[in-house]
Amino acid sequence: MSAYIKLKEIFKEASLSSDIAGILHWDMSTMMPLNSRNQRAEQLAYLSKLSHDKVSSKQVRDLIFEAKNEDLNQNDLHNLREIEREHKLTSSVPSDLVQKISRTAAKCEGEWQEARKNSNFNLIKNNLNELINLTKEEANILGNEFNLSPYEALVNKFEPGSNTQLIANVFDDLQQFLTPLIDTIIEKQKSQKILPIPNKISKTQQKELAEHIMKIIGFDFKRGRLDKSVHPFCGGSTNDVRITTRYNEENPFSSLDGVMHETGHALYELNLPKKWNHQPVGKSRGMAMHESQSLLIEMQITRSLAFKKFLSKLLKDKFNIMDKSFDEDNLYLLGTRVKKSFIRVESDEVTYPLHIILRFNLERKIFNNEIGVNDIPDAWNTEYKRLFDREVEKDNDGSLQDVHWYAGLFGYFPTYSLGALTAAQFASQLRIDLPELDLNIEKGKFDDLIKWLKTNIHEKASFFSTNEVLEQVTNSSLNAKYFKNYITNRYL
Amino acid sequence: MSAYIKLKEIFKEASLSSDIAGILHWDMSTMMPLNSRNQRAEQLAYLSKLSHDKVSSKQVRDLIFEAKNEDLNQNDLHNLREIEREHKLTSSVPSDLVQKISRTAAKCEGEWQEARKNSNFNLIKNNLNELINLTKEEANILGNEFNLSPYEALVNKFEPGSNTQLIANVFDDLQQFLTPLIDTIIEKQKSQKILPIPNKISKTQQKELAEHIMKIIGFDFKRGRLDKSVHPFCGGSTNDVRITTRYNEENPFSSLDGVMHETGHALYELNLPKKWNHQPVGKSRGMAMHESQSLLIEMQITRSLAFKKFLSKLLKDKFNIMDKSFDEDNLYLLGTRVKKSFIRVESDEVTYPLHIILRFNLERKIFNNEIGVNDIPDAWNTEYKRLFDREVEKDNDGSLQDVHWYAGLFGYFPTYSLGALTAAQFASQLRIDLPELDLNIEKGKFDDLIKWLKTNIHEKASFFSTNEVLEQVTNSSLNAKYFKNYITNRYL
Repeated sequence: MSAYIKLKEIFKEASLSSDIAGILHWDMSTMMPLNSRNQRAEQLAYLSKLSHDKVSSKQVRDLIFEAKNEDLNQNDLHNLREIEREHKLTSSVPSDLVQKISRTAAKCEGEWQEARKNSNFNLIKNNLNELINLTKEEANILGNEFNLSPYEALVNKFEPGSNTQLIANVFDDLQQFLTPLIDTIIEKQKSQKILPIPNKISKTQQKELAEHIMKIIGFDFKRGRLDKSVHPFCGGSTNDVRITTRYNEENPFSSLDGVMHETGHALYELNLPKKWNHQPVGKSRGMAMHESQSLLIEMQITRSLAFKKFLSKLLKDKFNIMDKSFDEDNLYLLGTRVKKSFIRVESDEVTYPLHIILRFNLERKIFNNEIGVNDIPDAWNTEYKRLFDREVEKDNDGSLQDVHWYAGLFGYFPTYSLGALTAAQFASQLRIDLPELDLNIEKGKFDDLIKWLKTNIHEKASFFSTNEVLEQVTNSSLNAKYFKNYITNRYL
Repeated sequence: MSAYIKLKEIFKEASLSSDIAGILHWDMSTMMPLNSRNQRAEQLAYLSKLSHDKVSSKQVRDLIFEAKNEDLNQNDLHNLREIEREHKLTSSVPSDLVQKISRTAAKCEGEWQEARKNSNFNLIKNNLNELINLTKEEANILGNEFNLSPYEALVNKFEPGSNTQLIANVFDDLQQFLTPLIDTIIEKQKSQKILPIPNKISKTQQKELAEHIMKIIGFDFKRGRLDKSVHPFCGGSTNDVRITTRYNEENPFSSLDGVMHETGHALYELNLPKKWNHQPVGKSRGMAMHESQSLLIEMQITRSLAFKKFLSKLLKDKFNIMDKSFDEDNLYLLGTRVKKSFIRVESDEVTYPLHIILRFNLERKIFNNEIGVNDIPDAWNTEYKRLFDREVEKDNDGSLQDVHWYAGLFGYFPTYSLGALTAAQFASQLRIDLPELDLNIEKGKFDDLIKWLKTNIHEKASFFSTNEVLEQVTNSSLNAKYFKNYITNRYL
């Protein structure tokens, strides 16, 4: 048996074990009885150790070395590259550092919840400092291994192939465009007359509506499910993709928008190439690419006027919901409202990137050793003032609002807006390739859209970097101009 | 680290991996999307290979050898005995034979479904013959390893410590008692006036009722769940026990009886000693002991007049179900109806043992080489005629009715009736130790009962054989007289 074939077998087992963990995670958030938490943590740690030991082994290193001298075709070479990337990622950081980070993060996340009760960053800063220092160690090791700057190495954990200088340039360009624009849009929207949604829609009916639209869009319920959970997510395993939502009877569209977002993630997972299902190159690319797929469905499609026409008609015809507030124009206005919020997760697609740019700029400064943990709240507030022209008055509205850093996630934030920019760039090409897109959406026809996404994006899995796929599909590397055009067209 | 401590770690990992498989099995039967079946089979095979390789390894054999010379206390010696039993069970049968049996069984089970469509045993006999021959190989190997006869070795896979000669004696005694008795009971019941259940009870209400009673009996919903599945079962993992049922709106008590049966299994699992949770000696004993716990709750408790008094009042007070057919006496008559059926799974507790005795007698003849596969249908029908004085007229009513043999399960059947006999023997002592039992049940108080079961049975886990526990609790080894008394009291 060739070294490459042996590698494929080892990575298939690692994939099986991570698929199993995916089901256990889903179960933990949707079905698991209350007191099983500790035991489930033990099960997950066991599975994770299993695949870590497998993937990081000296045997794998030797096999990679041998396989490089074997006669492999282009696809296999792509796979071998991803195999090596995964091996380096898991083997380069010593396992006692990994465990230390994981323990410190668990503790810090707990303390963060306490600090939030008092809206006081000082209560968490020592824990956060320890976590940042450990993460710097990790970032240095990964940076050396992959020949990247420490911060870039962190971003590459979540979106391989990321170039932080390119991201910085694109984000600067975008920020200069958005900051003045937002005031203009808010001013313009003052004159809009929006009817509030008057009647409750029951959770049962919301679920029925969500499943109905998921099916029409192309979600295959023979290979997936929709359930309830506190925090919505897209999880499960290969070819068994399980998304979740939460229902609010007063605000039916918060659930529907969320379901559409997760459906975007799910379609990507479900359309990955079968032939490569359990190999590293057959997995979804990274978090930025993933977010581009969820945002493309949620923002570009679901919040378009064309979709609101389809939705309004569906609500009337199928669900017998007749009130004027469910007219297409009103639904469109409801879905495109812009306001300056302190809180990222409450913000709209226009202001959202500024929240991310703030975090990206701070993360770079932290990992370039330009600011220390004590400087974080002030640096946050100064940056917020610069971007939004408002004063942050309490830590809960500023540096304490997101769990990410306190859970050890540094370098993750930029992927949200990279996703939004990438989605807009794909959508621009999509509208050129499919001129009838809006007409079809109005009629509830999504086949061409899904086929386009499948062929141009989903099936490329991890054969290429996100930027390479962007170049293949749009003849341009990541560029903010597509998002800027999209925002201008929709909001001005 | 001592050899014994190393063994404990290895067996803890095997237990984690079988717990994970338990959750995946539960998911497969309750939640999993249709097209995930093949993939789930792969995941389960992977987990099973993992623990098989772990438990059967030469390392484990050497550690057992070493551990026997270590200074261990009595509990640890029990655990070491169970460790060795598991090791021998998994290591003695060559893995290619195990795989061959598993493949042949999967094929045979598929063909059995075809044969049932034509009610024709001949269509499946070649497959069954192959499976029996392979199982004989396994039985010979296990028999040599454990110093048992081949058939006894098979029974011991499901209920360790079983003695087939003892079983045969007890079953003969029981059969001679039951065969004439059944006609007497049926004759007596002819004069009973039973009101049929007139109104449907919705599935939602049935579930509510089932959960309500489960809670009262002591099922801890923080460590378990109730769900729907095609075939009811008790599964899940350590301290996260998940039972299922199916609902029939026309016959609400078929679901409730089933839930009570599975609750009996679940209480056993949930009351196993925490300290030994992931060690072989901390697991439930065997299938006969397990069935004794489900039948004790389902038959001894739930079908008693005392319980029907409690249930009837509950239906009226809490669920507002008032019809006279829900009166206690009528519920009691409904739950104790006896009839001669061809089909085991449709039969009542009085005729049930005869169905098992038939299968036990045939299995012994097959594995003692007294009959070949061609003889099975005739041998079945002759035995049925002897036991029930009726003629079987088609294979679906005879040798084709149960999946067990066609799925490779030989030696499993006797555990059903061993469970019933054991339950009656325990219950007899229980009524001596708790003279107020019926009064408490009427009032919906189950604490003393559950405490008795926990202390006398559940917490003994696998420290002793079922027969040893019987002797500790009732001062007698397995004896049919308790069941005979119980049947006489309830039915004559």
